[in-house]
Amino acid sequence: MYRLLYWIIKSTDPYYPMEEKYYFSIPESKVPRIVIIGGGFAGLKMARSLRNAAYQVVLIDKNNYHQFQPLFYQVAMSGLEPSSIVFPLRKAFQNQKQFYFRNAEVIKIDSLLNEVQTDRGWLAYDYLIIAIGADTNFFGNQMIADHALPMKSVSEALYLRNKILEDLETALNIHDYEARQSWLDIVIVGGGPTGVEVAGALAEMRKYILPKDYKELNPEEIDIHLIESGPSLLAGMSEVSGKKAEEFLLEMGVLVKKNTQVISYDGRLVSMKDGSMIQSHKLIWAAGVTGNRISGLPEDVIVKGNRIKVDTFNKVQGSENIYAIGDIASMVSDDYPYAHPQVAQVAMQQGQLLAKNLIRKTKGREERAFNYVDKGSMATIGKNKAVADLPFMKLNGFLAWLIWLAVHLLSLIGVKNKLLVFINWIINYMTYDPSLRLIIRPRVPKKV
Amino acid sequence: MYRLLYWIIKSTDPYYPMEEKYYFSIPESKVPRIVIIGGGFAGLKMARSLRNAAYQVVLIDKNNYHQFQPLFYQVAMSGLEPSSIVFPLRKAFQNQKQFYFRNAEVIKIDSLLNEVQTDRGWLAYDYLIIAIGADTNFFGNQMIADHALPMKSVSEALYLRNKILEDLETALNIHDYEARQSWLDIVIVGGGPTGVEVAGALAEMRKYILPKDYKELNPEEIDIHLIESGPSLLAGMSEVSGKKAEEFLLEMGVLVKKNTQVISYDGRLVSMKDGSMIQSHKLIWAAGVTGNRISGLPEDVIVKGNRIKVDTFNKVQGSENIYAIGDIASMVSDDYPYAHPQVAQVAMQQGQLLAKNLIRKTKGREERAFNYVDKGSMATIGKNKAVADLPFMKLNGFLAWLIWLAVHLLSLIGVKNKLLVFINWIINYMTYDPSLRLIIRPRVPKKV
Repeated sequence: MYRLLYWIIKSTDPYYPMEEKYYFSIPESKVPRIVIIGGGFAGLKMARSLRNAAYQVVLIDKNNYHQFQPLFYQVAMSGLEPSSIVFPLRKAFQNQKQFYFRNAEVIKIDSLLNEVQTDRGWLAYDYLIIAIGADTNFFGNQMIADHALPMKSVSEALYLRNKILEDLETALNIHDYEARQSWLDIVIVGGGPTGVEVAGALAEMRKYILPKDYKELNPEEIDIHLIESGPSLLAGMSEVSGKKAEEFLLEMGVLVKKNTQVISYDGRLVSMKDGSMIQSHKLIWAAGVTGNRISGLPEDVIVKGNRIKVDTFNKVQGSENIYAIGDIASMVSDDYPYAHPQVAQVAMQQGQLLAKNLIRKTKGREERAFNYVDKGSMATIGKNKAVADLPFMKLNGFLAWLIWLAVHLLSLIGVKNKLLVFINWIINYMTYDPSLRLIIRPRVPKKV
Repeated sequence: MYRLLYWIIKSTDPYYPMEEKYYFSIPESKVPRIVIIGGGFAGLKMARSLRNAAYQVVLIDKNNYHQFQPLFYQVAMSGLEPSSIVFPLRKAFQNQKQFYFRNAEVIKIDSLLNEVQTDRGWLAYDYLIIAIGADTNFFGNQMIADHALPMKSVSEALYLRNKILEDLETALNIHDYEARQSWLDIVIVGGGPTGVEVAGALAEMRKYILPKDYKELNPEEIDIHLIESGPSLLAGMSEVSGKKAEEFLLEMGVLVKKNTQVISYDGRLVSMKDGSMIQSHKLIWAAGVTGNRISGLPEDVIVKGNRIKVDTFNKVQGSENIYAIGDIASMVSDDYPYAHPQVAQVAMQQGQLLAKNLIRKTKGREERAFNYVDKGSMATIGKNKAVADLPFMKLNGFLAWLIWLAVHLLSLIGVKNKLLVFINWIINYMTYDPSLRLIIRPRVPKKV
């Protein structure tokens, strides 16, 4: 009905762009169609929770795999292979009926027509779920964005791995001490879990791997700087965990600098607000995230951090059938007056609840508001070294590390990924020597 | 002495380019220095065989890893991860003294000065070993080189994997039957082991994986063409093996076309010499190899197939201290009047013998001429389906397949790679469903 009206408007308005619409070949169904954009923690959990529901589910993602973000840093540090921490989305849903996956990038939402446009075609929806997550925040500094190394996808993690290894190969052949430093030293910006875990992993690489692989280099020449703009590390965790993490890092020889902001980086020189500078060819940027953009939503629902304002049912303000879940959603509640934290647990719980609510709807039952159950947070700094804020206690050291391992292993999707990561961890733990230091570059076309 | 002379010539000749030479920082040694270019089967075997010899060994490779070529096709078919079949060269030599690795691309050889120039610096040698191998031969056809998909490196194998998966995603959304065909059909050129193995693996993918992952596609719409210019498949093997391989492929539904040459391909249309044509977005090119180029050698030592003419001691004709081994070397003997075959076994045996001969030299013993011991050749077409020409008999079917598995598993470098490949094979064999169908694209820089 809506569509008929639209076609009349379109055909009578001479200024309306007459582009041809190319629709995805997804069968029409008697049950309503839920379109989920994004196969991260939120979108994946939601799609799986809709198994057996009276809905047709279409999941759209620009990648054909789900990425396990918490272990990106191990990919970057040559500890794990990408394939061990990502999982093909098609395979995840092989046995789910009424489910369709489309590998495409969403261009815009047409909320009047209830359609989304992607780079591979159009698709109509009855319910639209936005689960597009967040990406690296460069705070509008294009120069930093051009030169810094982010770590919010496996591709970026692999790029960082290649860069670290290539710079070591370059440094090997530089005779001049000063010049060599800039290829060896590494600056990490952001003292959150990612920054802390990267700094720790780099310190271990320097200690255990470099002396074996690069005998001609003096590992002590490598400085690892961790720069945090706030007064403490792991700001999202308890004070004792932040302090302990810092202690671990200092023990491992990481140069921690707090209350300092990086203001520019040109690929060579890191400049800080206090006037100090560091020469380095590598700046790892883990200073914050910002919501991914999607066009077609009214301006006023986009709030701080580029997030989408939702009510406690994850419904986008002012809409009847559009929802946002996970990192992209900004939900305020009594317990969280400044919106919920952008972590995997919130994303998964919101995805699951929204699926249940939509199922409740089909059965005429009442929907339930979101209530976040915080199961705690953790960060690992090195072997036998981790910090954990659990609901009932705070831990650090070996026990926290064991819990960290177990939780991450169990959260991975797929038996094979669990097995592969487990084997890798055992071998790495025993040998201190993963064998993934491979600089695999993209294919170069041939001249004949 | 030579070098002094050179500097005098250089400084008195006003036309001599006065570029600054930047030398690798490799320590001077009392023992002679052997520089090996290329860490493939030949170079790796040779460098390892020089362990404990009275030589300093420098291995140069443009990649920092050794690639196990026989399993590239399984990477392309999503059966194995790159990291399972490549091995970091630095790690392979962690315990070898007097050994140095340099990750660099050789630009030219200066045989007057006994130096090689790379993109990362210069290096002097006492003995130079050229083990740069061979690459895809497009027979001078730039249009085919621009559009076809070769498979002579892990990067190329990964690219091919991505292309196959991406085209399936595209085909899914194409309503028109004819248009869809060109995204689904695959043309493989070359009926050697690579072409046969790829065709077989694709046929298995079509049969076992597509119906699960792409339920909306009809697998029967996918045509797999294998095109061979000669009268039989597996020309390097026995007639019975070639026939049996063809039989296996026909059983699996591969369209085999012999005595046909592909003459052009523009990314859409494959044209053959007999006038026939196939519409396809994928042309896998496995039609032959040509030696990699290196400049600085006299023109007359470069022979057919861009190979370097060597005597039976692998010494390059007209040189006293430059050798070539493996695919790049063209050695003629009574048994092989048209040069030795370009296979891994020849490469490894030549690398080992040359190492031994150079060691014999230091001990004043006589060098030995190369005598190839052919241990047979094999190709696998699918599960339980392989052909093997062994010295004592010819096999096909399940037993040949088991031997193929065992030989390839044992030839892989590193306990972990053996273990990973073994686990993958077991899982794939039991489930017919590897979980590596990941389209991991290179990193894209951000706009903020």
